[in-house]
Order: sequence, then structure tokens, then C-alpha cells
Amino acid sequence: MSEIHEECGLFGVYSKANEDVAALSYYALYALQHRGQEGCGIALNDDGVITVHKDSGLVRDVFPPGSIPLGSGSSMAIAHARYGTTGNDPRTNVQPLVITHRKGRMALAHNGNLTNDAELRESLEMKGSIFHTTSDTEVIAYIITKNRLSCTSIEQAIEKTMEEIAGAYSLMVMSSTKLIAVRDPWGFRPLCMGRLGDGYVFASESCALDAVGAIFERDVEPGEIVVIDSKTVSETGPVSIKTHCKKEKSSLCVFELIYFARPDSIVDSIHIHSARLRAGAFLALEHPSQADVVIGVPDSGLDAAIGYSRQSGIPYGLGFIKNKYIGRTFIQPSQSDREDTVRIKLNPIVSTVKGKRVVLIDDSIVRGTTSKRIVRLLREAGAKEIHFRSSAPKFLYPCYFGTDIDSSTDLFAYKYDDEQMCRQLDVDSLGFLSSENVTKLADHPCIGFCTACFTGNYPCPEPLCKGKDKYSAKLPRSEEE
Amino acid sequence: MSEIHEECGLFGVYSKANEDVAALSYYALYALQHRGQEGCGIALNDDGVITVHKDSGLVRDVFPPGSIPLGSGSSMAIAHARYGTTGNDPRTNVQPLVITHRKGRMALAHNGNLTNDAELRESLEMKGSIFHTTSDTEVIAYIITKNRLSCTSIEQAIEKTMEEIAGAYSLMVMSSTKLIAVRDPWGFRPLCMGRLGDGYVFASESCALDAVGAIFERDVEPGEIVVIDSKTVSETGPVSIKTHCKKEKSSLCVFELIYFARPDSIVDSIHIHSARLRAGAFLALEHPSQADVVIGVPDSGLDAAIGYSRQSGIPYGLGFIKNKYIGRTFIQPSQSDREDTVRIKLNPIVSTVKGKRVVLIDDSIVRGTTSKRIVRLLREAGAKEIHFRSSAPKFLYPCYFGTDIDSSTDLFAYKYDDEQMCRQLDVDSLGFLSSENVTKLADHPCIGFCTACFTGNYPCPEPLCKGKDKYSAKLPRSEEE
Amino acid sequence: MSEIHEECGLFGVYSKANEDVAALSYYALYALQHRGQEGCGIALNDDGVITVHKDSGLVRDVFPPGSIPLGSGSSMAIAHARYGTTGNDPRTNVQPLVITHRKGRMALAHNGNLTNDAELRESLEMKGSIFHTTSDTEVIAYIITKNRLSCTSIEQAIEKTMEEIAGAYSLMVMSSTKLIAVRDPWGFRPLCMGRLGDGYVFASESCALDAVGAIFERDVEPGEIVVIDSKTVSETGPVSIKTHCKKEKSSLCVFELIYFARPDSIVDSIHIHSARLRAGAFLALEHPSQADVVIGVPDSGLDAAIGYSRQSGIPYGLGFIKNKYIGRTFIQPSQSDREDTVRIKLNPIVSTVKGKRVVLIDDSIVRGTTSKRIVRLLREAGAKEIHFRSSAPKFLYPCYFGTDIDSSTDLFAYKYDDEQMCRQLDVDSLGFLSSENVTKLADHPCIGFCTACFTGNYPCPEPLCKGKDKYSAKLPRSEEE
Amino acid sequence: MSEIHEECGLFGVYSKANEDVAALSYYALYALQHRGQEGCGIALNDDGVITVHKDSGLVRDVFPPGSIPLGSGSSMAIAHARYGTTGNDPRTNVQPLVITHRKGRMALAHNGNLTNDAELRESLEMKGSIFHTTSDTEVIAYIITKNRLSCTSIEQAIEKTMEEIAGAYSLMVMSSTKLIAVRDPWGFRPLCMGRLGDGYVFASESCALDAVGAIFERDVEPGEIVVIDSKTVSETGPVSIKTHCKKEKSSLCVFELIYFARPDSIVDSIHIHSARLRAGAFLALEHPSQADVVIGVPDSGLDAAIGYSRQSGIPYGLGFIKNKYIGRTFIQPSQSDREDTVRIKLNPIVSTVKGKRVVLIDDSIVRGTTSKRIVRLLREAGAKEIHFRSSAPKFLYPCYFGTDIDSSTDLFAYKYDDEQMCRQLDVDSLGFLSSENVTKLADHPCIGFCTACFTGNYPCPEPLCKGKDKYSAKLPRSEEE
Repeated sequence: MSEIHEECGLFGVYSKANEDVAALSYYALYALQHRGQEGCGIALNDDGVITVHKDSGLVRDVFPPGSIPLGSGSSMAIAHARYGTTGNDPRTNVQPLVITHRKGRMALAHNGNLTNDAELRESLEMKGSIFHTTSDTEVIAYIITKNRLSCTSIEQAIEKTMEEIAGAYSLMVMSSTKLIAVRDPWGFRPLCMGRLGDGYVFASESCALDAVGAIFERDVEPGEIVVIDSKTVSETGPVSIKTHCKKEKSSLCVFELIYFARPDSIVDSIHIHSARLRAGAFLALEHPSQADVVIGVPDSGLDAAIGYSRQSGIPYGLGFIKNKYIGRTFIQPSQSDREDTVRIKLNPIVSTVKGKRVVLIDDSIVRGTTSKRIVRLLREAGAKEIHFRSSAPKFLYPCYFGTDIDSSTDLFAYKYDDEQMCRQLDVDSLGFLSSENVTKLADHPCIGFCTACFTGNYPCPEPLCKGKDKYSAKLPRSEEE
Repeated sequence: MSEIHEECGLFGVYSKANEDVAALSYYALYALQHRGQEGCGIALNDDGVITVHKDSGLVRDVFPPGSIPLGSGSSMAIAHARYGTTGNDPRTNVQPLVITHRKGRMALAHNGNLTNDAELRESLEMKGSIFHTTSDTEVIAYIITKNRLSCTSIEQAIEKTMEEIAGAYSLMVMSSTKLIAVRDPWGFRPLCMGRLGDGYVFASESCALDAVGAIFERDVEPGEIVVIDSKTVSETGPVSIKTHCKKEKSSLCVFELIYFARPDSIVDSIHIHSARLRAGAFLALEHPSQADVVIGVPDSGLDAAIGYSRQSGIPYGLGFIKNKYIGRTFIQPSQSDREDTVRIKLNPIVSTVKGKRVVLIDDSIVRGTTSKRIVRLLREAGAKEIHFRSSAPKFLYPCYFGTDIDSSTDLFAYKYDDEQMCRQLDVDSLGFLSSENVTKLADHPCIGFCTACFTGNYPCPEPLCKGKDKYSAKLPRSEEE
Repeated sequence: MSEIHEECGLFGVYSKANEDVAALSYYALYALQHRGQEGCGIALNDDGVITVHKDSGLVRDVFPPGSIPLGSGSSMAIAHARYGTTGNDPRTNVQPLVITHRKGRMALAHNGNLTNDAELRESLEMKGSIFHTTSDTEVIAYIITKNRLSCTSIEQAIEKTMEEIAGAYSLMVMSSTKLIAVRDPWGFRPLCMGRLGDGYVFASESCALDAVGAIFERDVEPGEIVVIDSKTVSETGPVSIKTHCKKEKSSLCVFELIYFARPDSIVDSIHIHSARLRAGAFLALEHPSQADVVIGVPDSGLDAAIGYSRQSGIPYGLGFIKNKYIGRTFIQPSQSDREDTVRIKLNPIVSTVKGKRVVLIDDSIVRGTTSKRIVRLLREAGAKEIHFRSSAPKFLYPCYFGTDIDSSTDLFAYKYDDEQMCRQLDVDSLGFLSSENVTKLADHPCIGFCTACFTGNYPCPEPLCKGKDKYSAKLPRSEEE
Repeated sequence: MSEIHEECGLFGVYSKANEDVAALSYYALYALQHRGQEGCGIALNDDGVITVHKDSGLVRDVFPPGSIPLGSGSSMAIAHARYGTTGNDPRTNVQPLVITHRKGRMALAHNGNLTNDAELRESLEMKGSIFHTTSDTEVIAYIITKNRLSCTSIEQAIEKTMEEIAGAYSLMVMSSTKLIAVRDPWGFRPLCMGRLGDGYVFASESCALDAVGAIFERDVEPGEIVVIDSKTVSETGPVSIKTHCKKEKSSLCVFELIYFARPDSIVDSIHIHSARLRAGAFLALEHPSQADVVIGVPDSGLDAAIGYSRQSGIPYGLGFIKNKYIGRTFIQPSQSDREDTVRIKLNPIVSTVKGKRVVLIDDSIVRGTTSKRIVRLLREAGAKEIHFRSSAPKFLYPCYFGTDIDSSTDLFAYKYDDEQMCRQLDVDSLGFLSSENVTKLADHPCIGFCTACFTGNYPCPEPLCKGKDKYSAKLPRSEEE
């Protein structure tokens, strides 16, 4: 039940045979919906002609029956599920972005966040560029376009672009003839590749490969560009370009393991569910407790709760029922309504907690408001003691790589010391996973992690203009003229 | 993940103070949505003027922001969430039913199924009655109306009606001045009462009381009529009429415990989650197994899986991720699509089951198709052995009381013997909860159960015209004229 | 631009061949939309199985592409376009009404208004009837059903029903095997019959026959029942029953000629456009004027304006542009907005009226508010003199036969004398067609007219409970219990 | 009933006082809807923050109640109604276009068509520009942005831009502080200015000024830029820049007079309705006929028909009823349906034409298909002779300035000689207004006209790449890479 959101899920498909790439993209978006629920879109490539269908809303809203040309003759597609700020025209920033440039049409879908977006944007504007969106995807499109003018291929242009942009980016790029997957040199955001018949698919998480019946092949590596076109798909297999940015130390966002990714996904060879079981086990070791039952906050705290239970020997229980019908159109109870109506969304199971000493596991504590509410529910249901355990370490530093942890001053663990936090939350004890152990959640140590939000150690330079509230709902007011 | 559906959830509210009864009904419908997802509605009573808002669809579709007069001055409301057949005009049967009769307006909401509906309907038609719907709710409305002509109050008319109708019915009735809750003499379907400030609420399950911040008071008893009006709400408290039908043996549908009700609800003093833990424990005792992990089919198999794990000592694990975004508008993969796309809805967690001996718990096996699909997913994920346990006994007889277990000939356990079932499902062992123990799921023996679908012992006479396919999507063709 | 509304347009089709009766009904509803814009519906009969598709809204809203089974195998259909009050659940009263009774299913569509509805309803309620709607169509359905129990055919039951009901009714009735058209003994509302291939169609106005490519055959006569089934359509032709109610004096609503019907329709052998030209000519003779130009209020005043121009020799001109895009979803300018925004809907053509003496023709003056507004527009556009002519006589009496002229006290011509009216409207002269000449609008005198709203001579008894506001938006409050 | 469509209607408002500029824009779009029915939008400026609300569809579809922030604090707005090709993502091209550039945000709305769009686009692409749309509005935005970098104000940048772009353009531009109206040097498309309280409004046609209660002030002159900001609105009045492009000969599209503009509008001091009356009078003089009645094809042929009637003395009659409820969602009769169903849209009034010699006036004949259909309707209705008169001259040349007269080879008058046309249309005589007299439709000769589609005399250079089908629904396929 994290208060943190990430930006976006990606999917791409190149089909040699007669696969329905529109339908595959649609199913993949359902599998990736947890990564972004504000908008989504699919760009289709039918023999070089690129079209796009996108809007704000969930997949079920954006693609009602009849809305996409299922069974069309397209052989390539890319798709995107987006988390993003609301703003006045949220539709504008929905992806894939499809543009026309000197060499034809290009579709882009982006997961991540550039740290030098402001500088690049300013430099482009100085040369006369206009921007339709507030998204850094458009900046990337511009730089690829610019480089394309002097490069012999789009993949060369992308390689050159990677030397200019910094920060987190997993990208799907579709030109009239090529499908291209790109992952930033640090590997902040996941991206994997699978086989589907004689064709290939790419996705942010392997659960989307499962959803379309593809077989996992490998992760796209940090700093790698993978190119598929009609020739390579048949003859050589995908072409891999290991850019020289590749030398960066890999820095997968550790919060992908704790919260973002789906438990059934495998990211950079890490089974997400296993990692969360390990988080629970570490928590049990670092912060043991005398208790009668271990419960998790659904859905993201359940895996770690099982891990804690197994390690500690304290029985695992179902503590809450989460209402699965509540969505965007749910009318919030007004302030004048009784506080109790919070139980519409989350209701405790009294028989599990009444008179019990409860270990409560959640994935994280960000601003603390959700956690307070949940603790109060348990108290009202008769829990005797509450021992709160967070499977993420204390959030102390802002993230510049695509999550919405904005500013230290709002962070619960930054504002309060341990005793104050206990009092604020009204819990009997409180424990966070240590930032040392958070990097040990992977069962085999083959990849590095970004833990900047816990440690302040940023793997790449921080943005110059940190203060600028990039995702402000209020659009920028112009300079005087 | 049962293939069985029930018909309906009920809610009613009488507010003395300034509660927003429209908003309360809306929240209650969200809490009761699991009982019926085909349509829903709310009837409001504003100083004697009854209006209704209803349609086919989920609460979120039927009540978009602005659709109900939140904050209106109404002091009474009843609401209904419906499961029902599609047919050509599903909207027609959506409830509450609101009609005008000799003595004014009346709104009805009904959960259950009459067993003498056909006879009553014929008798009414012989006297010139016309029917707008195919629902037995309209039959009940007619009989109350008829009795009202010779009775001095609506509650008297209802009492008389209860002598004429047979079968399962929990009812909410709203006249211009009264809110009335009714439960059939057998108590097939649940109905409980709570306090909200100085007013009262009724609901099919206590989870709806929690959702609106009401305090559980008691269950409406089998054969009881509870009446609230402006006088009783202030002075005497609700008037209870214990009809002489009351002498029937109570027969709560045991499948409410196993599947229908929400785990956080308390039904006839039974904590549903506890009952399911007990079902798991009984299963472990009746059908032990040598295994490495116990998993449940989400969401309805999870509670019993924990119970099995605790009793057996075999670790509990998360076996599947269920996609929570898939709803009515989801476009099913076409037959030509690969079979693998079933994993869009339910995807196994490989690390939990690969190479493992797995105990798989589901709430029931009806026609067997869903179970086969789930077992195949586990096999593909590498499960070494699969021991299937059903927390419901074998379905062998049709239900006439409001679930859609139609005919014995379709029932998996009726068609096959144990060995055949194992082969059909491709499991290593198979066990059903015994029909003896299914009545022991309640932790204290204060109520009787209907187990007719397992035992053939029907608590009230079966319908005469069993063969007539009452819920046929094809509407009846007329006789010749 | 009349402030009066009528209730409803009817259509029915019986196709022997392979006509798409759903599509024909859809096109006919477009042609009849001017008769009712609050709701519409189509009932289809596919080999005895009757289904209905209906909702509140315009045809374009109720039947979006994909909403009706075009090309289905149905051979019969009836359709209805409704004008009606808003109320709290306008959807409830939308027609066709489809009900099940002792002998099968029946669909009804009704244009008109019963004068003994209240008495019939009370008598039915005394026998235990329940009502789902506030429409008198349901009363008619009940009485047909009751009579059907003792009659050998539905047409007999209808004939018997006609002896019990009084007032205005043109009806389309569809049973499982028969299509039946009915017109009340006075012939208040129009109904005509046409041939389409080997089949038959019925419609309120001949413009709907034109729309579906049918050939006009004749009007259904006052007091006549026309029955079509599989036998008569092939062998004998439609069976006509001239009920003995037939002896009533025919009394077509004269306002059909002046305003309701479309100018291209032929109603009871009267060309509507010709009748309106004659209305204009009579006006020119009764109320001549010295003027420079004759203009009509679009659209219903245009025909009479041409008639006035031709008779008087004063040139005809286009005086206004009416915005054709404004519909139900148009957001009215708020009261705080400038008055001038009325010109969004109707804007004068300055060059036609500036400095001119203008004869302004409208179909009628009911409450006077619209007329005042239009006159002011002309004044602002520079008209020197305005001579207002109404092609309807003065409205002095309420109508009980299906228009919404409620009560004398609201009527402009009832409240004010001629001089006051001129002052109120700010016109230089004012003239109404005389109630003598209004009955001479037909070019050949073959039918009688109802002119009760002008003369107070009601062709059939007035309702007993005139005061009861039948179409009140507020639903009836129940009696105490 | 022309087969020609133009692109777009414009509106802009700068309010000093507390006007609701969102509501005014909404009403103005209703008044301008006839100029574009494919999409529309409103851009609001609230103290420098520019937001936009737009989509494909009619005003009533794009702006349902609640969709725009009526009553917001905005002080400036521009709005656009668009005619355009469908394509795969019609939404992309909907205007106003809102972009961010070096100096802030800018909103643009454009009516017209650049003739050097392709060259400009290519040149921009060579410098690395990317395009989101296929509209030349984006090209204009780029060039203004580029010039803005070296100019001290946006109006200077626009003036410089006007030296680079060629063709037809009326523009509304809104920066964070300024509202700017621009008309191309030839004045192809209309644009006028009005006062509203202490503020100003601009609109394509004066009927939109009437709709919002503004008072017409003057037309924006060809080659003029009008600038309003907080200073000028209060002190000096709008600043007018007469660009030196001003020396071009004025060339208002003469088809605005014949068809595009609304009859109640005044364009460049020409009363449109009067011009159409004159067109009818010229036709009567150039092509007299012996006939009994003159009728016009609704709605655009009605004015000229009155003019013909007055000049010739032949009586004016109403010949057709046009169904005003048919819109975008109307389901076209399938090919297998009878031809007669064309009468759903347009039905002749038999009494007007039966046995008569009819003069039929339409605004134009483009491809001839509509005209043939209309003539056949009249023949079926019994017209004895049909004398067809077109108030536009023969279309012989393509238009490059924003109408969709594509290619000579499709044009009826280009393909056939006079005798052939009569035979094709099945008329007794045929007459077109002469291209000499078409320039005399204005009652006072103060402006020049573009008559290129009739004469081939193009007022500005034709596009180089005429053959390129700019508005192709198929999006461009990329070059190879």
C-alpha cells in the first residue's frame, strides 16, 4: 500500500508470423497496469505506417471493445502504461509519443526520468524547438532526431543520444522498419526480452511475457541497445550494441524489488517474490518481536509477511480485506462523513487480530499518513500490541530517477526520530529493513542497486535545478515578453 | 475462484439524524459488490417520495460522479447488488423494484429464490396480472400488494405473504414511511442489523456495516420481520415480528461460509475467515498429504490454505498473482490465440512451486474446467506433485435457493468417480471436505445449515417444475392465440 | 417555435420478406423524432420472442452504432418516440412497454392521453394491480390483459378494451404472432398505413413511410383496429375491425395541422404544408397589414409566412437563423450572463428587417415568453414596425388529449385582452387565426377536428379529476399506512 | 447542401472585466459550428497559465456539462472549430495547438491553408524539428518560435513569419500576456473584431459576436496584425500593425459568400444573406426560366431561391424538409437497403412540386452526386420540369487555400459539357452563375475576391508539390533507414 508511484510500464513486439500484435499489446498492458494507471497507449506499425491509440485512463477505459484494430496486419507494436501527474491536460503526456521527423515516423515509449532534462530542454529551445508535452520523452525524441540527421541509422543516433542524456531510461523505439529496446547505462529501470514464435517481445517485467505466452530469453543489459528488423529477425537474431556508456556500475532501483514489480516477475534474474520473502526474513532477524500473528498490508506487504512468519515462527494470518472494486471513479467520503468509512477500502479481519500481539508488515513508510490510518484500524479491531515493520529502509533522500519521492522535508523518517515515529503511528515497536541488507534481497549478487533514497549515494549526478518542481500540476507561466 | 454465483447483496438504512443515506448506500454497495456484479441500484425515500437509480453494471459504472443526489434530504434508502443472467434486456431485472399500488409506493430488494415462483406467477396471471420482469421479486410485490388490500399495515401484509411464498428470501422493503427487513423461515440467506447514530442499517453481510461506520447489533432471525418507522426509531426501537413460520429449522446456506461471504464478515455469529481456516484444518485432517508448500487459489482459497498449513505444518506460500484490473470490458483472447494467454488473469509464482510438492486449495470444484486450467498452470511452472483439496464437499445436487448450480448432469463430482477426477484434473491426489464436517465450520453450533447441494436433503419442498429453465436468456415464446 | 409539446410518434412493421425491421424502425424513429425527443425504443419480434431496446434520449443517443441487432431475423417491430416529463426516473416511462401476461408477451406503444386514466387505475389497484410506470399505457396493457382472459383473440380483447377507455389513443400492439394498429373513435392522433414490398408498415405520419421507402396506402380510421399476422399478410390482406365506437364524430387534433406534424406529411388526406399555407392566407385575409416583408419564426412559422406573403403580396423574407447544433446537452447561459446571448439559438438577419415594417408569423402564442423574446430580437435588429400573426387561434382552454397545455390560468390569451397583449409583446398589431377558419385548413372537408383548446368544446367527456397534476415531476406521496 | 468543406472557425476573447471567457468561447463555438464539425477546442489563459480542452467531435460532444471550467478566472481564451480529414488519429490535429517554446507558452488557432507548407516543413526537418501533427499550424508555430528568438516581441516574430509563409491564414495567437489576431495579406479567410464591455473579441464571422453579445467593430484587414494586452486594452485600444505584405490585392474567398458563411453574418462589410439574394437575382437574369415555383435545396440554397423568386416573379415555395436530427452517429442505410431511404435525410414536399415546373436552386455542383439524388427525389414527387440553377459558377480548378476541392478531374463541370451535365442530372435546363457576376455579389465594391476555383487565376503562387496528397488519411510511410 505504498504512497510511492513510479512512472511506467513498457512493451514492444516484433512478429514475423501472423501474430496479432495489437491484441498482444493489449494483454501486455493489462499485465503491466500496476506500473502505471493514469494513461496508456499502443502504437502499431503496419508495413511502415505508424498509428497510435492512446488516452488517459486504465486499459479497460482507453481500449473498450472495438477501439483497437485487433487482427490488423501490423507486424510491430510498442505500448506504454503511464503513471503521471494530473495537470490540466493529462492526455497530452500519454505515450507512446509518435512524431514525424526528417527520416520518417518514430514512436517512443519511456520509463524513467532524465536528470539533465532541464538543461537539454533549454538548449533545444534556444535552437527554436517547440514542445507539446512536459515529458522528457519529447526531449529524447528531439535528440535522436537531431543525431539522426548526421548518422546513418537510427540505432547510431540512439547510441549518440545516450552520451547526451543522463538519468533513468528504459526505452522502446519503433521506426518504420525497426523495433529497438534501450536501457540506460545504470540499468535503473528493468527491461527484458522474450521469444514469441519466430518473433520477439520486450517488456518492463517478465509477467507481461507470461501474459502473452512468450518465453523469457534474457534481460536487456544496462547500456545496451537491441535492434530488430526484418533481416535480423529471420537471420542473425537481434543485434546487440553494447554502448561504451556500458562501463557504468549497474544500479537497479531497489524499490523495484520491494514494491514496484509484480511478485511473479523475474527482474535481472531476481525472483521478486523470493526477494520479498527475504526482506521479511531479514526484518525478522533485524527486528524480532514477541507476537501472536504476522500480517501484511495487502497487497504489497503480503510477501514479506510470509517471509517474516517463516523466519520467526510466528503464525501468518490474513489481517485485512482490500476492496478490489474501488477505482478512479470512486467518490471519496466527504470530510463531514465519519472517519470510519475508511473501512470501505480496507477492513480488518477481527478474528485474526482481536486480543493479539500483531506484527504488521508494509512495504514502506513514506509520509506516514497511510500507516497511521492502518494502525488505527487494527487498534479499533482490538489488536493488543502492534509491531510495525517496513520492508523498505527509511526514506531520507529524494529520488531523481522516476519515482515521486519529492523532497526530504515531507518524509516521515526524515522529520521524526524513532521514538517520535512510534508515537505518531501509535505502535508498540517499529523496525525498518537496514540499508545494508536491502542490497542483499537478490538471492545471488550479480547486479548492483540504486539505494539513493535511503543512503543519498546517487549513482549519477543529481539534476542542477533540483528545486524546480518539474511535475507541477500548474503549467509553467511564461516569461515576460 | 468458484464457478458458482449467488444472487445479490442487500442494504437498507433508516436515519433519524442528518445522515446522507444516498452516500451510505453507495459505500455499502461497494462493500457488497462481491455478491452481485451484474447490476445495482439505490431507492431513496425523501419524505415519502420514493425514487430509484439503477442499471446493469458495477457500482462504479452505474453511479458515476454526479449520478446520485448525494447529500439529498432522504431519510431512508434500500440498495441492491445483483448477480443475474444476461438475457436481452438485463436492465429490466435490476433492483430495487419500485412499484405503485393501492396504498402508495413500495420499493423491494430481494436476495434468494422462490421455489413456488412458477405456481404463484401462473395464479396471478390467471387473475389478470401483467409482468414487466422475469424476476420473482415482482411476484413477491404482487402478493404483498394483494394482501395489503385486506390488511391494516404493510407488515401484516408481509407476514401473510410469508405463508404463501416458499424458498429462500432475504428482503428489504421500503414503503413511504417504513423500512422493513425480512428473512425467510429457513434463513437461507444472511441479513444483519446495525446501529448508525440514532438510526439503523441492514445488510446482507456485516462488512457493509463496517463500510458505513455502523455498529453490528444482531442478525435478523429466520422467519423474522423487523419494522422501523419514525415512531419506533425514536421511542421503542425496531419492532420485531416473529412470524409463526419461525418454527422452521434454520438452514443457512453453508456455501456462504465457504465462498459467498467476505472473509471479514460475521454471518449468524460465524466469523467467515475463521470458518474457512477451520475448513482448511478439517481438510488437513481428512486428507493429509506429504508436501512442501500449501497454496490457495486467489482469492477465495487463501483462507483455507492458511488453515491447512497451520494444521499440517506444511509451509504456506503465495502460489499465484491474480490480475485485479480485469473486468467486464476485458476482451477475451480469441480461440486462435495461444492457450498460454490464460496467464493474463492468473499467473503462477514459479519460485513458490518449481520442483515442489504442492497442496492446492480451492473453495470448490463445480464443472471442473477452471480447476483443470489452474492445475495445468502449476504443472507448466514446474510443480512436482499437486494435491488438490476442495474446501467444499462434492457438488451432487442442484440448488433451488438462489445459486446457479443448475443440474446434476453438469457437476464434475456427479459425472466422475474419484480416480477419474484425478485423471481429468491431472492431480496426484484429490480430497473434498466431507459433508459431515462442512456443518462444523461454525465455531459454535447455534444454527443449522442447508447442505442440499452436497446431500440432497432439501430443507423445503423442491419446485414442481424443476425442468423449466427459469433463467433462460431466451425469453419465453408466447402460446398461440 | 411552439411552447407546446405532444406525446409521441409511433411506428410498426410486419415484413413478409427479408426486410431488416430493426433498421427500418431506426430510420422511422429519425423521421418521427420531431414528435418526441425525451426517449425512444424499438421492440423486436423474432419468431415469437419479443425483446426491447429503449432509453431516455434522442434516437442518436439511445441507438449508437452497435446497439440494435441490425440485420436480425425479426419479422415484426414496433417503435416509439416519446415526449414526456422529466421526473426522477424518466427511463421508467419510455416505450414500447413490453409485458408478460397469461397468454404470452405483448409490446405496446401509445400516442395520446386517456381521460379516464385515474378511474381505471384506481379500479385496477383495488383488485391488486401494481404499477411500474406513471404512464397510461400500463393501464391499457392491464385492461387488454384482463379482457384477453375471457376473449378468444387479442384483437377481441382490444375491441372490448376500447369500450372501457376514453380519450386520445393511437396504439401499436405487437403480440407473439400479430401486429395490430388501433386508433381511438375520435381519431385525435394520426395513424397511417403503408405497403413495403409484401409487408405492411404503420406510422404516426406519412413522412416515416417515405423514410423507409414504403408506399402510403391509407389512414387507419377513427375507431378502427387493423390486424396483420402471417396468414393475413399473405392471403387476405390486413383485417379491419370497425368497432362500434366508430360512430363517434371524428375529431383530429387541429394542432397537428398547425404545428405537430411535419410539413411533408399527409395526415387524414390533408397535406400539412398546404394546410399551413392556407393558415397564412386566412391570416392575411383576417388580419391584413401594411408591411414591407413577411417573415416566419423558424421552423414552424415558415410555411404560414409563405402563405401570408402569397395572399398579401408582401415579399417573403428570411428573418432568422436558427442554430441547428443546439441540443439537450447545451449549457444554458447563466442568469448573470448578458441577455444578448439568446442570439445563440436564434439570430435575426439584420438586412431583412432593418428599417422595415415586418409581418412576423409564428405557429402560436401559449405563455407569451418566447414571443416576447423574438419580438425584442427584431426590435434590436432595427425593425420599424412589427405585426405579429399567430396561425393558431387564441389558446383559452386546457387540453386533455395529450398536449401539455395545462391550465387556462397560464395562457397568454386567457390572461390578457388584445390591447394588453400588444403591449406585453411590444408589437404594433396582433392577429390570431379565428377558430372558425382553423377548421378550414384542410383543402377538402372530409374530417372533423378537435378545437377544444380554442373553443372549450370537448369531443369526449373531460376527466373527473382535472386538478390532479398527472405528469408532475414529483412522484406521488403515498397515503399513510 | 454543398459537397465542399472548409477548414475552421476561429474565436478569441480578451476580457478586462469579469467575463466568463470559457463560457463565451463555448457559445461562440456553437455559432461557428457550421465552419467545422470534426473537432473543436478552447485554450484558456488564467494569469499567464495556458491550458487547453479539445477533442474530435461536435461542441456538444467535446464539451459535455462539467467539462470546461466555466466561471474560471481566465481573462483570455481562443477557440477553434475544425473541419478535417479523419485519418488514424484525428484527435492529434485538433486545435488550438498549445506549445511551449523558449519564451513561454503559446496557443494557436488557424483557419486556412499554407501553399508553401511542404517546403517549410522540409526545411524545418533538416534542422532537426519533429512534428506531432500533419497540420500546417504546427509549421506556423515553429516559424514564429524561431523568429521569436531574435525578435523583441511575439508580434514582431509574427510579422517576420508572415514574410515566410504563403497562402490562406487567419490566425488567433495567445501568449501568456497577449491576444493577437492575424489575417493573411490576401484576406482569403474572414476575421472580424468586436467589443464586449471593456474587452475585445475576434471571430471568423460576426454571427459569433452576436452569439456572445458583442458589438461588431470592424474586420481585421488583410495583412494586419491586431495585438491586445493588459495595457492596450485599458489605454490605447488594440495596436494594429499593418505589415508591408499589406500591399497584396485583397482576395476574399468568394465561396464564403455563396456557401461557407452563415446568412446572418456580415463579412468584410458584406451582408451574406443579401449577397445570396443577389446571387439568386443574377441567376434569374442570366438563366431565366418559365416555371411555376422556385425552391431551394435546404439550407444553403434557400436564400438564392428567394432572390430568384423576387427577380423572376415566380412564386417561392418550400420544396424539401431536411431532417435536423441526423448527425455523426447516424447509421447509414446499407447498400442492400432500398434506394428510397435517402428520404430519411431530405424529403420533398409533394404538394409544392407535383405537376409543377420547378426552378431548383442549390449553392453549387461539385461532383454532381448529391445533385443527381435531389433531382431524382423531385421527379419521384411528380415535378413536371426541373430547371437547375447553381449560385456558384462552374468549378473547374482545384483550391489550395483551405477548401477540399482537390483535383480538376473529379469536378462535374470539368468532366462534362453543358448538354452532358443536363443529361447526367436529368434536368430540363441548367444554369450556373457566371464568374463575372460572382464578384458582384457584394452590394458595394470595396474588396477583391479569389475566384481561382472558377477561373484558374490564383492570387498567390500555387504550391510546388500540388500532386502530394497532403490530407491523405494514410499517414506517410517513412523513408528507408
